[in-house]
Amino acid sequence: MTPNAITPTRAQDFPEWYQQVIRAADLAESSPVRGCMTIKPNGYAIWEGLQAAFDREIKAMGVRNAYFPLLIPLSYFSREAQHVDGFAKECAVVTHHRLEAGPDGGLQPAAPLEEPLVVRPTSEMIIGDAMARWVQSYRDLPLKLNQWANVMRWEMRPRLFLRTSEFLWQEGHNAFATADEADADARAVLDMYVRVAREVLALPSIPGRKTEDETFPGAEVTYTFEMMMQDGKALQSGTSHHMGQNFARSCGIKYQDKDGREQYAHTTSWGVSSRLIGALIMTHADDDGLVLPPRIAPEQVAILPITKSPDAALTEHCQALAEQLRAAGIRAEVDARDMRTPDKIWGALKRGVPLRVEIGGREAAAGTVTHVRRDLGRGSKATAPVQHFLGAARGLLDEVQQNLLARAEQRLRENTHDTEDLDGFFAHGTGFARAPASVLQDPSFTEVKKRHGVTPRCMPFADGGESVIIARAY
Amino acid sequence: MTPNAITPTRAQDFPEWYQQVIRAADLAESSPVRGCMTIKPNGYAIWEGLQAAFDREIKAMGVRNAYFPLLIPLSYFSREAQHVDGFAKECAVVTHHRLEAGPDGGLQPAAPLEEPLVVRPTSEMIIGDAMARWVQSYRDLPLKLNQWANVMRWEMRPRLFLRTSEFLWQEGHNAFATADEADADARAVLDMYVRVAREVLALPSIPGRKTEDETFPGAEVTYTFEMMMQDGKALQSGTSHHMGQNFARSCGIKYQDKDGREQYAHTTSWGVSSRLIGALIMTHADDDGLVLPPRIAPEQVAILPITKSPDAALTEHCQALAEQLRAAGIRAEVDARDMRTPDKIWGALKRGVPLRVEIGGREAAAGTVTHVRRDLGRGSKATAPVQHFLGAARGLLDEVQQNLLARAEQRLRENTHDTEDLDGFFAHGTGFARAPASVLQDPSFTEVKKRHGVTPRCMPFADGGESVIIARAY
Repeated sequence: MTPNAITPTRAQDFPEWYQQVIRAADLAESSPVRGCMTIKPNGYAIWEGLQAAFDREIKAMGVRNAYFPLLIPLSYFSREAQHVDGFAKECAVVTHHRLEAGPDGGLQPAAPLEEPLVVRPTSEMIIGDAMARWVQSYRDLPLKLNQWANVMRWEMRPRLFLRTSEFLWQEGHNAFATADEADADARAVLDMYVRVAREVLALPSIPGRKTEDETFPGAEVTYTFEMMMQDGKALQSGTSHHMGQNFARSCGIKYQDKDGREQYAHTTSWGVSSRLIGALIMTHADDDGLVLPPRIAPEQVAILPITKSPDAALTEHCQALAEQLRAAGIRAEVDARDMRTPDKIWGALKRGVPLRVEIGGREAAAGTVTHVRRDLGRGSKATAPVQHFLGAARGLLDEVQQNLLARAEQRLRENTHDTEDLDGFFAHGTGFARAPASVLQDPSFTEVKKRHGVTPRCMPFADGGESVIIARAY
Repeated sequence: MTPNAITPTRAQDFPEWYQQVIRAADLAESSPVRGCMTIKPNGYAIWEGLQAAFDREIKAMGVRNAYFPLLIPLSYFSREAQHVDGFAKECAVVTHHRLEAGPDGGLQPAAPLEEPLVVRPTSEMIIGDAMARWVQSYRDLPLKLNQWANVMRWEMRPRLFLRTSEFLWQEGHNAFATADEADADARAVLDMYVRVAREVLALPSIPGRKTEDETFPGAEVTYTFEMMMQDGKALQSGTSHHMGQNFARSCGIKYQDKDGREQYAHTTSWGVSSRLIGALIMTHADDDGLVLPPRIAPEQVAILPITKSPDAALTEHCQALAEQLRAAGIRAEVDARDMRTPDKIWGALKRGVPLRVEIGGREAAAGTVTHVRRDLGRGSKATAPVQHFLGAARGLLDEVQQNLLARAEQRLRENTHDTEDLDGFFAHGTGFARAPASVLQDPSFTEVKKRHGVTPRCMPFADGGESVIIARAY
């Protein structure tokens, strides 16, 4: 058996395996600026797919996209004490607006700003400021805004996609006349997140609300969906907050109701980020590298001409097949690079292409193809007449999608255990502990959290607030 | 005759009219941070359309999107002296990465960075740095990368969409083995820009190359396309540079050729920005506000229920029509807001919706609609049976699109004049002067440029470098 493409394996060293999968699939790399990443074309194509999938649903909810300034005046951060506590330690601050030659001939900052500007760690404060101007009457509500943007939170221990100083996300900020509408909306957004993650990314999750201690500063309620990675740790994949009137008060978002009385709006805020690419990797990838669910895979079928030396006729034969697949709405690419065949095969494996097709001269002549499903490891080779494969390709991709989801669901199910003995559970085990909500009040819980490095992830909707999921987390 | 929706009119005060059109269409506003803008939902939807139209063509050229860090180490800017000259005066500089409470209790920057970081004014240097790592062999070429991102150039005299400290753009950076390939690619990109602007935005332009003096610092050749605004001034709408090996040398982009020799790559860089929204406004809008070409209009048909008090049945009737239009691929919206009818009509005019449909109770009963083309001013009302309108809507939108393009083309043609007497031309006239290229060598040309505030815009491809277009410009 050939060794695995990725060294170390998941079992040997999960964090290092994660980095090596990213490198082998050429998704991203660390940048010269500490903590920031460069998202390479293979990684960015996944982000574009993700963005399209969520954006469609966001718009279907009546939310409108907009763009707010990158830089936020320092004074805005003083308006909401709780807000600042959360971000102040990790803000990049612009203090000058010019460069000039210094005494040693090198460049140095010149022209200090009257007020320093903060590179947005979130746009909450500047969008709130705009909402306060845009909302006057009950007729202006609901106001639902979303922004796709880069944000910056200085990160001392960066990890690609999971924790970087700069990352990409969407942040939604909605305002309503009543608390009920705001709460229902925060829930509806979370349900949408869970659905898209499951249907498009094949990522199952446990949705619920955060415990009081884990609720976002300033929020009344934080809804979250938590996924289980292959090492049993939890990944918080996105959150949706019902802010009550707290945020409206600090930003001055007021409206005149139908009776002419002035009221504060009730707001929500919600976001998912490039972190979801980390979730995709840690949920589906294996010891040969990335495994992408077909619905998010930028390249769904990789077609490899199998030949020792460049063969124009064979390449053309492969291109014709790719064209037919594309005509059927399948994202197919021919790897016609001047490269050894085994390297191409390893390349397709490591990039996570759901379906690989190999065509040698003999197969081209016989009108057959060999196809291999990425999700089944190396033992799934099958040969079929081209016409048969063309008819079956869509179905094969659907099977891969379903299999990846089923596998992840099984993992989540089998590694979530009901227990009241948290200390015993985490002393030996990994995965999610589902405990009665009463443990949160147990005086020993603080000690358990510290001893095992675990946190309450959420109180699942499915249990009506009676239980709490506890786990180690990213 | 009702007064115009926009005060002042174009003839009265063109720059102020421009600001008022933006305000009336609710496209954008100045932000609390000097020189930065907030792009509001109506404006951002245009940007999304523009982005989709260009992105499709960019990908069709084999370019791959990626994302590079926002912050660039100061030292990178010292590598290319010419490059720095262009941007140093307008850089936002990050010097700290934390906030802390100051002596007066307010927040102040803390934790100075070892090396200041510059908020990207362009990503040229950081993408070049990556290319130097990613390109090793001739097999890695061509490498074609594009990024959609925000950039920052401190602006002392900002104007919405035209000149703001932060703006949105795409920047492409391609590397090739040979000068011929690079030059052909820079031309092909410009041709693509011209085509998309013309076909989707109904914006005609004069494509050509910049004169030597106007060529981008460090470039061998700068290709540009210049549009004419309704006040006769030019707008540079995007550029495509062939950098020769200059940029590859300063960034170290080298490859081994087939014979094992080390060579510098030949690079290009190319971009269009949110400035194109300014071009749309100043080309098509009139004294009643924005006029959008249907192919870029987020809302192609506005359906207004005409009634004095809310009428659920009428609204439903309108919604049914909107559904039918949407099923035919037309972006239709019903304006069911609780608002006076004349305000809704003015709203649709000012937003620039290409086709307005009015349906009162009597028309609903009779199964007819009244429709009005935005491009024909106020005199184009027509009434038709619903079924007839449904069949004709696509054609009507195409007519609006063609008419806007034809009108802009006529304006460009009629206001471009052959002349050798530049002083005489600009003493009284506006528009574009087309002069023999020899004027560039004329000793009096410097004086003419200064006296009339004009610049050479481009040497049109159509004249094979024999002529030069001279104009006042944005």
